[in-house]
Amino acid sequence: MTRIANAALRAKLTTAEEAAKFVKHDMNVGMSGFTGSGYPKLLPGAIAARIAEAHDRGEEFKIGVWTGASTAPELDTALAEVDGIKFRTPYQSDPMMRRKINDGTSDYADIHLSHLAPMVWAGALGKLDLAIIEVTSIKEDGTAVPSSSVGNNKSFLDLADKVILEVNSWQSEGLEGMHDVYYGTRLPPDRKPVMITSVGDRIGQPVFNINPEKVIAVVETDHEDRNTPFKAADADSEKIAGYLLDFLQNEVKQGRLPKNLLPLQSGVGNVANAVLVGLMEGPFEQLTSYTEVIQDGMVDLLDAGKMTVASATAFSLSPEYAAKMNREAQDYAHKIILRPQEISNHPEMIRRLGVIACNGMIEADIYGNVNSTHVMGSRMQNGIGGSADFTRNAYISAFVTPSVAKGGAISCIVPMVSHHDHTEHDVQVLITEQGLADLRGLAPRRRAKKIIENCAHPAYKDMLQEYFDHATKTANGQQTPHDLRQALSWHVRFLETGTMLPA
Amino acid sequence: MTRIANAALRAKLTTAEEAAKFVKHDMNVGMSGFTGSGYPKLLPGAIAARIAEAHDRGEEFKIGVWTGASTAPELDTALAEVDGIKFRTPYQSDPMMRRKINDGTSDYADIHLSHLAPMVWAGALGKLDLAIIEVTSIKEDGTAVPSSSVGNNKSFLDLADKVILEVNSWQSEGLEGMHDVYYGTRLPPDRKPVMITSVGDRIGQPVFNINPEKVIAVVETDHEDRNTPFKAADADSEKIAGYLLDFLQNEVKQGRLPKNLLPLQSGVGNVANAVLVGLMEGPFEQLTSYTEVIQDGMVDLLDAGKMTVASATAFSLSPEYAAKMNREAQDYAHKIILRPQEISNHPEMIRRLGVIACNGMIEADIYGNVNSTHVMGSRMQNGIGGSADFTRNAYISAFVTPSVAKGGAISCIVPMVSHHDHTEHDVQVLITEQGLADLRGLAPRRRAKKIIENCAHPAYKDMLQEYFDHATKTANGQQTPHDLRQALSWHVRFLETGTMLPA
Repeated sequence: MTRIANAALRAKLTTAEEAAKFVKHDMNVGMSGFTGSGYPKLLPGAIAARIAEAHDRGEEFKIGVWTGASTAPELDTALAEVDGIKFRTPYQSDPMMRRKINDGTSDYADIHLSHLAPMVWAGALGKLDLAIIEVTSIKEDGTAVPSSSVGNNKSFLDLADKVILEVNSWQSEGLEGMHDVYYGTRLPPDRKPVMITSVGDRIGQPVFNINPEKVIAVVETDHEDRNTPFKAADADSEKIAGYLLDFLQNEVKQGRLPKNLLPLQSGVGNVANAVLVGLMEGPFEQLTSYTEVIQDGMVDLLDAGKMTVASATAFSLSPEYAAKMNREAQDYAHKIILRPQEISNHPEMIRRLGVIACNGMIEADIYGNVNSTHVMGSRMQNGIGGSADFTRNAYISAFVTPSVAKGGAISCIVPMVSHHDHTEHDVQVLITEQGLADLRGLAPRRRAKKIIENCAHPAYKDMLQEYFDHATKTANGQQTPHDLRQALSWHVRFLETGTMLPA
Repeated sequence: MTRIANAALRAKLTTAEEAAKFVKHDMNVGMSGFTGSGYPKLLPGAIAARIAEAHDRGEEFKIGVWTGASTAPELDTALAEVDGIKFRTPYQSDPMMRRKINDGTSDYADIHLSHLAPMVWAGALGKLDLAIIEVTSIKEDGTAVPSSSVGNNKSFLDLADKVILEVNSWQSEGLEGMHDVYYGTRLPPDRKPVMITSVGDRIGQPVFNINPEKVIAVVETDHEDRNTPFKAADADSEKIAGYLLDFLQNEVKQGRLPKNLLPLQSGVGNVANAVLVGLMEGPFEQLTSYTEVIQDGMVDLLDAGKMTVASATAFSLSPEYAAKMNREAQDYAHKIILRPQEISNHPEMIRRLGVIACNGMIEADIYGNVNSTHVMGSRMQNGIGGSADFTRNAYISAFVTPSVAKGGAISCIVPMVSHHDHTEHDVQVLITEQGLADLRGLAPRRRAKKIIENCAHPAYKDMLQEYFDHATKTANGQQTPHDLRQALSWHVRFLETGTMLPA
């Protein structure tokens, strides 16, 4: 049975290969997709095939690819491996895409996830030629039910010259009603307050408006999202989660947080999972989440009644949980809300709701600056994602990492980070498996003491203290004592010898 | 004639010396004052005298000093020169205060101006023992008319255990009605939207509420604000202002900005002055400003009818303009609004109104990171102030500086900044007297090309290009090519030889 109830759009049904012919060199293409959810499954591959053929003929053919966030091999790998991407934004985590960024083939603009849609509306990224958007179904009135992510789809659909829709019958029809697509954004001077005052508030509509005249093709698919299996938390992650939960409990005890905390945001990954597991076992009730992605652990918290409502822009589930969500989506539609990422990550809401943010990082320095994106200063890992959207406006902003990486060859606490994504002004709490440093209201020298004592790995603690003592003796000022000859020497040593430890 | 109409508070009239006796070692004191406007004129000196006496007796006596922003010699110099400040936040620009920060005598937490009040409410800085607040007058009902800055006064008055008021008869009674003191802020989960949708909206009240039971002393003074003489713009500033105005005109032409622009924010100083002068002569009409401080040039724009309304938290006027404002304040009360700095710098409003931000800096690097605070990485200059409040949420965020400093010994465009206050993710436009680089939507390598070509001084342009070329050849990734051995070498050379130019 078709998912395309609108006759005019059903008449545009075609193959991905046919639809891909519209795409030409130098076009900017906005695609759906956020952390492996809701990306187009067929068009990117079909476009990649045409790009490869063009390259074989010696023709130039590269496109700009704007998405919600990271996608999946069918999109990023497919287009990157044929050298088909001239420009990528705002986030990626695909090994092939990463390789092409770091070898200079593809330009990559690492833009805050909440900023992309407003920037596109403002015209700061040029014209959007085409939107390729996965949807769950098309209704008789021509509106479309979003699939497992909302991302920037509403803006891409509104702004693109032309639209291709992928209708994916793998996505559950039970998703209908879960989305809250807000159509009230404007460019200044016409912007109005976004009237969300509680995580569960709905201010939009459950479907995308589609201008049928812009739709040049509709494609059907039943491919499933890329859902990565759940990894049980390791010992370090459990320790980090434990420190965070202890910290939050103490904040409640001190009267600085309500008993049910404040809306939680957390990045994806081991530590986030461990925090969610910890919350299952912990004393907190009536929790809420205002975040980017719905993970397995949140579904458990909702099921257990520990969490009342979760707001995000996408799912990021294991295959098992994705299957469960597909079966039971309708039951979750009143306690899960998927919003455009411009709203899920909006500074106005994050500040108002008082979000407690917890994000992973690559490294932090002794003064509390955080590098979320670059390996040894030059090499892009994934991107800043929404970490700064949340950190910059959060009620409490925490960053977490194991204290060492590469079997101890890298200290994740360094004299000076090799790239700055979050400055000393915005980072409030640092946590490693060694412990937690509460940096709120401290001058940089006081932060250094806490970070070295509480967070550094024993193998690097003395080295950090020596750097700090030496810098304090020799620096031209005591606000943030650095020896600029040595500040990045640990990274240099790693690049030269394969370890930050001295010979 | 007394300015203290309330009998209960008039009964608390005393001398500064008497009032100062309340202050004890280790107290946290919140004082009024923002860019030399509205700071207490008498109490700080009286406290400093008591601190000096205590030190002479061999007793410990240091206090925490929280303000709106920078103040004046009567406050920062007076308390710093007796080593009386253990902790200072959120901003300062006083030579003596700076010296004590950089020699390690005083801790300094460099906090975003919009964040201090919410952090104090959240309890993240500890207990506020005392508020010392300058006001223009006390009304019969016990409320108080603010003076030439609002700053954090409302929060300090609400939160402090005890209150001392300085009633300053130098401040014009005509100021009454100009202020908009918003009493709607709350801690989450009780925060509501701040319903300003246009620069001129008033959402508060013209006076501070005062709890008379907390007031331990009232002091009278007639001392004038420290108002620094207006400096005519130099040639470099005029060039920088010209590039900015050309850029804005082109944005209008491209349809990316309305004809009357969007609300302007600008830092204090030469370039800001030159921009305001340029606007007087330029084609823009019906301008508005949503900023921190009202400067001479804005008064001219209001007088000329080029600007319709200006919102800020304080005045920063020359003595001549301050005198004029004192005479004519009542006439300006409908087109100037002074708000708490939490509202003047609030991310919600800055994003909603679409502010065009333009701030000075110490240095930028070839990838668009900006250092606003530290000289050669370690030494604090003034602080980040509101620059990140505006930059992070602005519609357009620009940073300006002459391309060289110290007669050419310092390049203000460097391979890597020695301290990061604004990251590559947030800086959209860089301007020096050499030209303007529009960085919006560019990958870091493209930014480097533009910044070196358009902004660098000729004496350093080839050196920057050589660094970039070398880094590109040797880096471990092409996203942000750096040679970490050399990235900070220009600063090291300056510290060792007094110039960034090679021998």
